[in-house]
Amino acid sequence: MSQNIYDDPEFFAGYSRLPRSVGGLASAPEWPVLRAMMPDVRGLRIVDLGCGFGWFCRWAHENGASEVLGIDLSEKMLARARPATPDTAITYLQADLATLELSARSFDLAYSSLAIHYLEDVTRFFAKVRAALVPGGNFVFSTEHPIFMASHNARWLSDADGRPTWPVDSYLAEGPRTTEWFTPGVVKYHRTLGTTLNALIGAGFTITHVEEFGPTPAQIADNPDLVKERERPMFLLVSAHS
Amino acid sequence: MSQNIYDDPEFFAGYSRLPRSVGGLASAPEWPVLRAMMPDVRGLRIVDLGCGFGWFCRWAHENGASEVLGIDLSEKMLARARPATPDTAITYLQADLATLELSARSFDLAYSSLAIHYLEDVTRFFAKVRAALVPGGNFVFSTEHPIFMASHNARWLSDADGRPTWPVDSYLAEGPRTTEWFTPGVVKYHRTLGTTLNALIGAGFTITHVEEFGPTPAQIADNPDLVKERERPMFLLVSAHS
Repeated sequence: MSQNIYDDPEFFAGYSRLPRSVGGLASAPEWPVLRAMMPDVRGLRIVDLGCGFGWFCRWAHENGASEVLGIDLSEKMLARARPATPDTAITYLQADLATLELSARSFDLAYSSLAIHYLEDVTRFFAKVRAALVPGGNFVFSTEHPIFMASHNARWLSDADGRPTWPVDSYLAEGPRTTEWFTPGVVKYHRTLGTTLNALIGAGFTITHVEEFGPTPAQIADNPDLVKERERPMFLLVSAHS
Repeated sequence: MSQNIYDDPEFFAGYSRLPRSVGGLASAPEWPVLRAMMPDVRGLRIVDLGCGFGWFCRWAHENGASEVLGIDLSEKMLARARPATPDTAITYLQADLATLELSARSFDLAYSSLAIHYLEDVTRFFAKVRAALVPGGNFVFSTEHPIFMASHNARWLSDADGRPTWPVDSYLAEGPRTTEWFTPGVVKYHRTLGTTLNALIGAGFTITHVEEFGPTPAQIADNPDLVKERERPMFLLVSAHS
């Protein structure tokens, strides 16, 4: 069973103040890249695995998806997603991605934003996603990058010239990483990039694109804090077809 | 045109003393993993791109390959490879991988060990490799890992607890990295893992396995210096089929 940190009051309060929680997809700097990795959603049956406040579900519905199912572990997030949805076109379901069962061949597109780093067993998850997709269906997801997650002391250092540099250690030591993010004790699971890609291939997916997100010059001009995100990739974005 | 650093006398002397130069494949810790990513070579026509002293070419010949072509830029390395080969089963060719032309559909397996990080343009190279393979042929290669290559100050640091940590910065800044390895001024080309994989996919390959090499406990017991190589991956190993 996964840790349900999003329903922790302190975590939820902090997370709710993030730009992406307030402003949705337009405030997530990796969204334009992720969107470009997706097929046209018109007419598609879509499942959003770790849908949070439902921003992507609403976007998919507004862009012509025929059916949208949003799944999340957090009751608090779903309680905010449901009333923000104008009609019954989106179904929200509370479930743990670690134990999720989905109907076979029911979706054309599976989407998952920044959720799978909370999953200990990605092999089971990818197999369930693959089985839920029609042949030729697409899976597009983002996750924290293993370069970002690997170290047990993951904070910026200065190199010999005083330039910021990001520590990578314990990279081959896969498993839990307990960090402080809004609240102590947030458990995420580090695995190598190879492990993630091989698990996808093992589940029967063909990898179509791998992106290590970095902000654009325009994004850095808008938000100078993002400049450090050119030094090390924070997010890994992957698309695959079944 | 690629830098021909291997023919620099000082570099060549240093490189020639490396365990892998003296002991061949058995002294390359990543070899067992790379070998496991390859098909049975019996009866295959094989091209080794960056063959160096010819260790892999001889191994492939001894293991039943029907035809082996070894290509390298370094005359000094080929001058040592040629007399070490017992018969005419292996052809050695001096050529720059950056400008290489290969006959179409001539090989069943393309192999490249720790060479492509010297190539500025991997897109052209992968297209040439793909065209040289028969449909269903395999391409297996190793390269320095972008985590290993990215930083402009790529040397071990200590974290707040005094543990060794590896600096990653400039990860998204692809391009040349000039380092000192046996001699100053060795030019390698950093690109993200995504760029390498997307270039393969763009050339028409299907990725079958991605491995970020780390030494095994037995290898560390034999050579305690290898323990640090669990902290950050030094090599990226990829297999793909055409």
